[in-house]
Amino acid sequence: MKLTLGDIADRFDLTLQGDHSVSVTGIAKLDEAGPSELTFLFNSSYRKELAACKAAAVVISESDAKGCPLPCLLSKQPRLSWAQIATLFDDRPVADGRHQATAIVDESAEVGENVTLAANVVIEAGAKIGSSCWIGPGCVIGAGTILGKDCRLYANVSLYHSVVLGNGVIVHSGAVIGADGFGFEPSAGGLVKIPQIYGVVIGDDVEIGAGTTIDRGALNATEIGNGTKLDNQVQVGHGTRIGEGTAISGCTAIAGSTIIGNYCLIGGAVGIIDNLTITDRVEVTAKSLVSQSITESGRYSSGTGLMSGNEWKRNIVGFKQLAELVRRVRKLERAAKRTANGSH
Amino acid sequence: MKLTLGDIADRFDLTLQGDHSVSVTGIAKLDEAGPSELTFLFNSSYRKELAACKAAAVVISESDAKGCPLPCLLSKQPRLSWAQIATLFDDRPVADGRHQATAIVDESAEVGENVTLAANVVIEAGAKIGSSCWIGPGCVIGAGTILGKDCRLYANVSLYHSVVLGNGVIVHSGAVIGADGFGFEPSAGGLVKIPQIYGVVIGDDVEIGAGTTIDRGALNATEIGNGTKLDNQVQVGHGTRIGEGTAISGCTAIAGSTIIGNYCLIGGAVGIIDNLTITDRVEVTAKSLVSQSITESGRYSSGTGLMSGNEWKRNIVGFKQLAELVRRVRKLERAAKRTANGSH
Amino acid sequence: MKLTLGDIADRFDLTLQGDHSVSVTGIAKLDEAGPSELTFLFNSSYRKELAACKAAAVVISESDAKGCPLPCLLSKQPRLSWAQIATLFDDRPVADGRHQATAIVDESAEVGENVTLAANVVIEAGAKIGSSCWIGPGCVIGAGTILGKDCRLYANVSLYHSVVLGNGVIVHSGAVIGADGFGFEPSAGGLVKIPQIYGVVIGDDVEIGAGTTIDRGALNATEIGNGTKLDNQVQVGHGTRIGEGTAISGCTAIAGSTIIGNYCLIGGAVGIIDNLTITDRVEVTAKSLVSQSITESGRYSSGTGLMSGNEWKRNIVGFKQLAELVRRVRKLERAAKRTANGSH
Repeated sequence: MKLTLGDIADRFDLTLQGDHSVSVTGIAKLDEAGPSELTFLFNSSYRKELAACKAAAVVISESDAKGCPLPCLLSKQPRLSWAQIATLFDDRPVADGRHQATAIVDESAEVGENVTLAANVVIEAGAKIGSSCWIGPGCVIGAGTILGKDCRLYANVSLYHSVVLGNGVIVHSGAVIGADGFGFEPSAGGLVKIPQIYGVVIGDDVEIGAGTTIDRGALNATEIGNGTKLDNQVQVGHGTRIGEGTAISGCTAIAGSTIIGNYCLIGGAVGIIDNLTITDRVEVTAKSLVSQSITESGRYSSGTGLMSGNEWKRNIVGFKQLAELVRRVRKLERAAKRTANGSH
Repeated sequence: MKLTLGDIADRFDLTLQGDHSVSVTGIAKLDEAGPSELTFLFNSSYRKELAACKAAAVVISESDAKGCPLPCLLSKQPRLSWAQIATLFDDRPVADGRHQATAIVDESAEVGENVTLAANVVIEAGAKIGSSCWIGPGCVIGAGTILGKDCRLYANVSLYHSVVLGNGVIVHSGAVIGADGFGFEPSAGGLVKIPQIYGVVIGDDVEIGAGTTIDRGALNATEIGNGTKLDNQVQVGHGTRIGEGTAISGCTAIAGSTIIGNYCLIGGAVGIIDNLTITDRVEVTAKSLVSQSITESGRYSSGTGLMSGNEWKRNIVGFKQLAELVRRVRKLERAAKRTANGSH
Repeated sequence: MKLTLGDIADRFDLTLQGDHSVSVTGIAKLDEAGPSELTFLFNSSYRKELAACKAAAVVISESDAKGCPLPCLLSKQPRLSWAQIATLFDDRPVADGRHQATAIVDESAEVGENVTLAANVVIEAGAKIGSSCWIGPGCVIGAGTILGKDCRLYANVSLYHSVVLGNGVIVHSGAVIGADGFGFEPSAGGLVKIPQIYGVVIGDDVEIGAGTTIDRGALNATEIGNGTKLDNQVQVGHGTRIGEGTAISGCTAIAGSTIIGNYCLIGGAVGIIDNLTITDRVEVTAKSLVSQSITESGRYSSGTGLMSGNEWKRNIVGFKQLAELVRRVRKLERAAKRTANGSH
């Protein structure tokens, strides 16, 4: 694609300070962009890097642009402009509306208009695929599963039976939606499997990362609200309900029947135990364990912070006597009080 | 399926207090069940919710049933009845004994009677599939790998060569059994790969969750005992041996050559380092790190518990001076002792 | 394969103390090896086990071999000899240079000499596969993706578009390379996706474990250096750069744009947050959270260590009052000082 700074300014309604005819072939970081690439200033503290920057132009806020030695594309929200401009350089697979010969569609399934089915796709009985979906190679769509329109499934996604995706859902490779929740009842003969008979219901504009697993429910469907984004290798247990506009970073594990609110930010590698309720706008920092319900919005953490191995070893000894230490301090305080009283 | 309360009472030998002819179309939670659904009371503390419950009937213990405003199915073990009754409403894929045209079976492989092979299944040389197995779309079964009877592999499962599954094993999508263990030896030329020449041996009635990985061994086979259940995204290192009837929740990582006993309950997102021995009936709470062998049955934990971000920041400063704090308290105690001695 | 102790001594230049003609059929652990198996002594502290060992011979250092009751193969580096000898007994799939009829190769893709394409492989437009690669069943190789020579992809690997693998790269089943990084910009209309337009570049002799996910970049390619090894279920965020000869154990999560040096040893289930820089030769113990850059080589840890449930509960109460406890100790110290001053 041939693009100039002028084209980009026009398309995204940005003010260009510089030569409209300069051609742009891509985007890159401030310290790595070449003379035909566009770059971005997201944070005023990096302004001093502009002097050495070789980019064709920088997308920048009006206030940061003062004295900028480069051509500028003025934006009220440089990060949002980034999201928009980057779409011009995206080479992700394009839907072409073709069904490859090796795609296998059960005769009772319904496939909408302009759906792309890549090689070796398998669509089981009674499934419905909305218009303009793009289904990558090796994806399996189980019986009775329903996709809205404009969904995008990358290679080797597995959707079980009785799963519902809204419109515009993106699912990355290796993700598994609708596997059995982990439910067993102890008995004399061993652990008895509890059938996981409910499905999974996913809203519009949800993105699901590579290798993420979302289990089907036992007594209610597992639900993910509109606009929620799950990173790679997230685990969502059976019957869990996640609200709208929530973002969950990679490798976070959420146990069954927990309810998570709207607009939460859950860090990476967090653990959330089962049967909790977490309110809206809760932020949990990376690798925390959420072991109780959270009823107030705000930021939450657990863990000890990182130390050098030796420092850690010394302090960990202290941790294991912490209850004892609290008692000893209390005793000292009582003694000090007696001393103080005695000395008056 | 047309079912009545009477049918269910008869089939599972439950006592019905209510109208035998009421039809039942499914099961649901106490607060969500509709008038044609069955519900369950698992815990006496929820008895007060029975008043507002709209279910057709409740499966309930005899003691909780006193004064129950709903029709009751009396059960000695309501959770076990749940596991049994739910099977009636399970729409998981049914084995039909058909081999899809696109299933590829090496001529030296053996496939038992009544085995279902879905689309794009690949069975390599010398593999053996026991009778009545159900192999989902896109599954790959490596050379010489052996499945007992009645196994169920959901879509896109990968079994390497020289893996053995017992009878009645369930493996969920995206699981990988028999990949190389992580073994390298440093040398002048870099890390040298240690071939992982042993396989994996899995007992009867084991369930393996979506995205779970169980590595092959280097000096002995990796083993999972009968009736053990692994949730999603569990990692089992090479040469590890897990006993019978143990349940391991999602995202738990178990390093190589560790031995885990029978009837353990390992929580989610737990880490267990290599070369440990964990005895029978050990419970480990979510997100703990097991860094030493456990020789006594019981419950084990690590971690700090969750705090608000500000509270956590304050306490974490204390943690990093904990060894120092212990010393300071000891010094105060000595001083207090001197004071006490001096004042007598 | 028929092999004798003499064959092995000759092939790997080891000194044999024993009968050259004894045949060897495999390798096993010290306490499990049978009379036709070779075993290894890696650690002098296990010398006492040699007495009961039934192996055909033991690979052992010269110093440990003194008085050894078994035939010995003397090695300067028994673990390295293990890595070498084990290759003789490895039954992993062998490349045969055949393209299975069900392998689907776009006409614009280039496939080198002696490449094995298993069943249901999909190679998209413009991809290039170097000579002698082995591509397992169900693998998908995206448009424009490039593999060096001698790569090995096990079943059901998903490579997105614009991914580059060096020579001799091994990728295990279920791994996903090149999925979108997790990047969204909040806006009035919800989270806006930031296109992930850069690819992934992986060096020579890298190994990537089962279920591991390596995201593509947004403003620079994600990079993994030569000879680096990633275990199963590792997550590598977008734009992250990992050096050479680094080993990362299973289930470790690395967030975006972090830089990790050469020859690091990152334990299992570690979390590393985004935008950090970690220098060379850093060791991080299992399940730590790295929340700040590391500028000095050495060993680092976080966490509390494992305790029995009761002990943990008591100490955790202390942890939550740790900041308060530090203040109380300081107050006691001041009081003690006053007392000491007063008493002089």
